[in-house]
Amino acid sequence: MSAPTICMGQYLFRRIKQLGTEHILGVPGDFNLILLDEIYNVSGLKWIGCCNELNGAYAADGYTRIKGSPAVLITTYAVGELSAMNGVGGAYAEHAGMIHIVGMPARSLQKARAMLHHTMKANMDHATYIHMAAPIRETHAYLMDDKTMAEEIDRTIATCIRSRLPVYIYVPVDAVSVQLDAKRLETPLDVTVRNGDGKTEDQIVSSTLSLIENASSPVILADVLAIRHGGHELTRELAELTHFPSYSTPLSKGVIDETLPYYNGLYNGKVSFPGVAESIESSDLVLNIGPLLSDSNTGGFTREIKDDNLVLLGHDSCQVKNQKFDGVHFLPVLRRLVAELKANSQKYNLPRPPNSPRLETPVLNDSKSGEIKQSYVWQRLGQFLRKDDILLVESGTAQFGMPDATFPPNIKFITQTFWSSIGYTVGACFGALIAAKELNHSGRIILIVGEGSLQMTVQEIGSYIRYGFKPIIFVINNNGYAIERAIHGPEQGYNDVSVLWDYQKMLEFFGAREDTSVKAKSRATKTVGELEAVLNDDDFASGTNIQLCEIFLDTFDYPWRLTQQIDISRARTRREAERLTAATGEA
Amino acid sequence: MSAPTICMGQYLFRRIKQLGTEHILGVPGDFNLILLDEIYNVSGLKWIGCCNELNGAYAADGYTRIKGSPAVLITTYAVGELSAMNGVGGAYAEHAGMIHIVGMPARSLQKARAMLHHTMKANMDHATYIHMAAPIRETHAYLMDDKTMAEEIDRTIATCIRSRLPVYIYVPVDAVSVQLDAKRLETPLDVTVRNGDGKTEDQIVSSTLSLIENASSPVILADVLAIRHGGHELTRELAELTHFPSYSTPLSKGVIDETLPYYNGLYNGKVSFPGVAESIESSDLVLNIGPLLSDSNTGGFTREIKDDNLVLLGHDSCQVKNQKFDGVHFLPVLRRLVAELKANSQKYNLPRPPNSPRLETPVLNDSKSGEIKQSYVWQRLGQFLRKDDILLVESGTAQFGMPDATFPPNIKFITQTFWSSIGYTVGACFGALIAAKELNHSGRIILIVGEGSLQMTVQEIGSYIRYGFKPIIFVINNNGYAIERAIHGPEQGYNDVSVLWDYQKMLEFFGAREDTSVKAKSRATKTVGELEAVLNDDDFASGTNIQLCEIFLDTFDYPWRLTQQIDISRARTRREAERLTAATGEA
Repeated sequence: MSAPTICMGQYLFRRIKQLGTEHILGVPGDFNLILLDEIYNVSGLKWIGCCNELNGAYAADGYTRIKGSPAVLITTYAVGELSAMNGVGGAYAEHAGMIHIVGMPARSLQKARAMLHHTMKANMDHATYIHMAAPIRETHAYLMDDKTMAEEIDRTIATCIRSRLPVYIYVPVDAVSVQLDAKRLETPLDVTVRNGDGKTEDQIVSSTLSLIENASSPVILADVLAIRHGGHELTRELAELTHFPSYSTPLSKGVIDETLPYYNGLYNGKVSFPGVAESIESSDLVLNIGPLLSDSNTGGFTREIKDDNLVLLGHDSCQVKNQKFDGVHFLPVLRRLVAELKANSQKYNLPRPPNSPRLETPVLNDSKSGEIKQSYVWQRLGQFLRKDDILLVESGTAQFGMPDATFPPNIKFITQTFWSSIGYTVGACFGALIAAKELNHSGRIILIVGEGSLQMTVQEIGSYIRYGFKPIIFVINNNGYAIERAIHGPEQGYNDVSVLWDYQKMLEFFGAREDTSVKAKSRATKTVGELEAVLNDDDFASGTNIQLCEIFLDTFDYPWRLTQQIDISRARTRREAERLTAATGEA
Repeated sequence: MSAPTICMGQYLFRRIKQLGTEHILGVPGDFNLILLDEIYNVSGLKWIGCCNELNGAYAADGYTRIKGSPAVLITTYAVGELSAMNGVGGAYAEHAGMIHIVGMPARSLQKARAMLHHTMKANMDHATYIHMAAPIRETHAYLMDDKTMAEEIDRTIATCIRSRLPVYIYVPVDAVSVQLDAKRLETPLDVTVRNGDGKTEDQIVSSTLSLIENASSPVILADVLAIRHGGHELTRELAELTHFPSYSTPLSKGVIDETLPYYNGLYNGKVSFPGVAESIESSDLVLNIGPLLSDSNTGGFTREIKDDNLVLLGHDSCQVKNQKFDGVHFLPVLRRLVAELKANSQKYNLPRPPNSPRLETPVLNDSKSGEIKQSYVWQRLGQFLRKDDILLVESGTAQFGMPDATFPPNIKFITQTFWSSIGYTVGACFGALIAAKELNHSGRIILIVGEGSLQMTVQEIGSYIRYGFKPIIFVINNNGYAIERAIHGPEQGYNDVSVLWDYQKMLEFFGAREDTSVKAKSRATKTVGELEAVLNDDDFASGTNIQLCEIFLDTFDYPWRLTQQIDISRARTRREAERLTAATGEA
């Protein structure tokens, strides 16, 4: 009796189903249609069509951030995969890994180098686009050989889960029907993160424990890669066990419940509320988990934590004081640390009362009337949030303003401070909505997006409506690209966008109308009074329908964090240039 | 006295102005703002903001096709340039070259490998994205060295014009102010296309002339690269001088005035009207200018012209019967051929009356009422055209239907049959509108786009309105991706798009409203009678306002050319697979 087989397409989607995935995102194209058929043959899997591939990649990124397991994005050869590149690049930068599957021409046509549509010239190597994507993925499988297809699929998916980075699977259309060994599917993929060298782990754990035992003012700085790499719960446990003053960053905001007494603020170098930088930088032990040390996540590189006071637990290296351990992943280390502290809390004197009182969050502007200001709006929107909400905040003034707010417990916060591709959240929100549905998530989904960013990716609002989702959408309307006005050329025409769009008609155009029975309400607010009325309206806040609230802000009004970081970046650029000039002069 | 200097940014834009360019397309980003300032310092140059970079690249492509000289697209580091990739790839494939300028971080920060926003990890080579774009450009300049900036800019721009392919100029933000030798600008760039070896040209010209002299049934097959590479007028002259039966292809439709007696049809291998393939394939001399031999431009590789009867004048090689001349560009060859034929028309017996009568274009369906059918609508839309119109036809049923129509004289036809990226024409139309404005073009601009494609890039409709353009837009509404339904899975859910969008409200949302005083009219047509009423309405046809006409077609109604080409492609794939299986079996 011969071994049971299963076609490649089925094999792939069953592996994906094993991850708990229920929805496959993407855009069809003639080289992936036969593969897409197989989705319908796996019980519990559904296809979700996106308006275009960039938005699809953003959606996949957003799905991954909420679901925790990788999204699956399917695009077609050349035109599809290239359109997705910026979105996949962002997922690579911010560790929101996805499985990007690209449909390709049949192997025979590839080998013949046929000048098919979507190639670029006669006799072109059909793998050209595969090479282009190399820097934005961790690994890839190119399914040209029947014999290795199954193991290549397995290896690629497992790498995606372990690395939390995008991977690609390239599927020639004729490969879909290749018969693979079905027995393999009975063995789940091994996706456990392990550090090869147990001794190095021992050393990191024991020296960290000893530092914790002896520290006089220990703090926890929990950054975004703690969340991305599956360490969110452990990080919360560590904070809860120790009661060490705990901090987030612009990218990790919400990682620690901000209503807890030991949460002490958001650290962004010199671009932080009063007292935050001082209290971290004067600590004799900073437990920094999952750091992502980019400019905008470190106040323009003004984070100043001395190695002598640092335990850094990263996804690709750890560091205890001056000793660096390359290739060590924080997850097993953190797991052991938490277990040990839990088992021997007395030994470590835990929970430990803080040395100094909790830092107060300043109230920036508690206007009750008049124009809506940047100094008012972000803290106010923070008050609008409820426990368990998913909040997406677009690059721009929203991203630099929202750190001023205090979140209720368990907010899932999505923003793209490192990659900073405007328009991202409109796509990411679609993915977050899908992931929330899979998780039966109880909280609302709230999108805050500037109108310049919204114009980039606006069509995906239509997908929310198409699939019956009901996010609350805030459109920040301030006449163009405000973040760029703040950086350079505030009155230059290049920072303008069309002012003719009527966002009050947007949901209607995309499908929320009397004749479609999709209920929606759109409102425009120009004053604090008008905005308060909307925010206090139970119908608006309920999240039972898709809702839009447009907030008009002054063209030249910027959040203080944006202005301050720009000043710092400018000074740094000046210094770098001077240093270089001096160095060149010396040489 | 020191030599006069000019800053790099000024130098670049003055070079661009010398090409006759008046508008610079793009999307601002913090790494290109300082460069953009310099646009405003060059008299006669204007900035045009696009909603996103993919649309911007499509617009640049469309501009180039109408203007003849390369468009200029400016994007920002990483997020911008990667978003544009699919659009630039299409311009590479179809030889609609553009100068793509990418703003980058300051050189000092690049050298320090600073972990800025838009990078992807610590210590990343900032040139990573430059490497990714290598396959979609002819050359690039990376302005890191003050000493070579001016010549690198010149070399890159000249290469773009000669090659008609995209080029990239990467501009670190601090390079904008570098002082360059202003005197260089007094010498115009040498962009003449020359073939190094005069003797090879002699040989091609003389043997071709001899073949023309002796041919009994010569024909001209004028393909799209004749247009793209500046040979359109020469091709028309050749046809007019000789009166040889002349043919276009799907990509070059309109290249020869279709009302002239010697125009004889559109050749697409077996996917042609009756008589077309036979008359070309039985000719003893096919003068094939600017061929692009992709699947959809050759009826799925069913073009059958014997080398013995072929003179092929290509952009990168020429061929006379069985002799191939690599690296020879058709343009100087064609110029000499036309000059010689003009000078000695008697010797060549020109113009020569055709051997057989002009082929009749069949009337497929002259419905006067009832549902609108694919077999009716394309020829009818062809009748709506007027001399000098610019017509953009989206990939999909429109692209496969429009070859059925007969064009009035001097239609500029834009379609992307080779690259076939859906959504392309919505962006390309924006660029075509800008180029037409620069040229004071008298014809109307007409866009025909399916609703599945429109959803990809819909926001750029807002840019038409923002800049006061007045195209006529036909939206083909047939419930999803019809071209893909025809290929595979006609009833599968993946071929659906949202049916909730109300295209009648689209222009209103994007800015054509009472309160904005932008006049527009939107109409929906479900029957032949309704469509006829719109097409016969002078107000609609005048092009004095932006107008939209939605045409509803049956979900499963496809143009005959699409069905036929799919059948051919399927058969070919089967044969290739069988051949390969057989070959593997033998090995």
